Amino acid sequence: MIILASGSPRRQELLGKLCKNFIVEVSDAQEAQSADDPKALAVANAVLKAQSVAAKHPDAVVIGADTIVVLDGEIFGKPDGVAGAEAMLARLSGKRHEVITGLAICADGSVYTAAEVTEVYFGAMTAAEIKIYAATGEPLDKSGSYALQGGATKFIEKIHGDWSNVVGLPVYRLKRLAEAAGINFEEAD
Amino acid sequence: MIILASGSPRRQELLGKLCKNFIVEVSDAQEAQSADDPKALAVANAVLKAQSVAAKHPDAVVIGADTIVVLDGEIFGKPDGVAGAEAMLARLSGKRHEVITGLAICADGSVYTAAEVTEVYFGAMTAAEIKIYAATGEPLDKSGSYALQGGATKFIEKIHGDWSNVVGLPVYRLKRLAEAAGINFEEAD
Repeated sequence: MIILASGSPRRQELLGKLCKNFIVEVSDAQEAQSADDPKALAVANAVLKAQSVAAKHPDAVVIGADTIVVLDGEIFGKPDGVAGAEAMLARLSGKRHEVITGLAICADGSVYTAAEVTEVYFGAMTAAEIKIYAATGEPLDKSGSYALQGGATKFIEKIHGDWSNVVGLPVYRLKRLAEAAGINFEEAD
Repeated sequence: MIILASGSPRRQELLGKLCKNFIVEVSDAQEAQSADDPKALAVANAVLKAQSVAAKHPDAVVIGADTIVVLDGEIFGKPDGVAGAEAMLARLSGKRHEVITGLAICADGSVYTAAEVTEVYFGAMTAAEIKIYAATGEPLDKSGSYALQGGATKFIEKIHGDWSNVVGLPVYRLKRLAEAAGINFEEAD
């Protein structure tokens, strides 16, 4: 049995590209907060999420993921309301930032981890564009206050890395991590 | 009135990120074939598509686009059946290629053009993976025989550039081109 320890519909859709049969069980793990190293923080949180679900399902393959946005070394999580989203978008406007997803797979008592980094280059947004986008509500539950594949498509000039990582689950990296761990998503049941 | 001169559902979805009201009219223009310069070819075809529709709707803003895949200077169009798709995917496996979309906007008797280039890095695919993917049928109507956002997500290690360009319409570049031409997609009707 494969379990995705995340309630994100975007992660569920992306995991569907690697395996047809999996269930979702949202972790109740407390997330780690402070960290000097954003990559280590994302991986730590992915491990915490996966482990808390794996503890209840020792025979399952459990996948955890945690995505953060980093601008000039500062970590952006989900915004605190519409005003918070507007402030975050104003900070991202016209700049390059990094999206980091930590991955963890718990299987057979072992934990396999990886981190994927994608650089995202925002074009300059006007104050009016930011206001309109924040008001759609889409940014409110997103790390960094935007969705690459949603209303922010038109603001993003380019990326360097895997687009699925920006959406929330780096599919290629997860496939490689599973292969290295000897886990076959297609054959798991 | 805004007209998209393309029948691609993927382009229609992406244009929806820039304007809410547009209609689709597929061009019957003959496409240019030979070209030493892939960028010029993509732009030429975008112009041909947009112009053939604009000729019938002189008061409309008409958008044309043409997407090609280029590997080591060789242009890949749509595959010739399942075997052709398998051969194309085998060529792309483990290599970097370029996706180029030519854009043309016809408005008020003027034509505005641009070309967007995105580098795509495929991981190595096994012969079995290629066979399974080609058999899904998804590659058959795609330039280069794959869909970034579809079954090929798990094969693509990274991109350098705009993901929407790989899907078929570079949204950010189109927004900038329209702005430079003084066209407001939101206010057009």
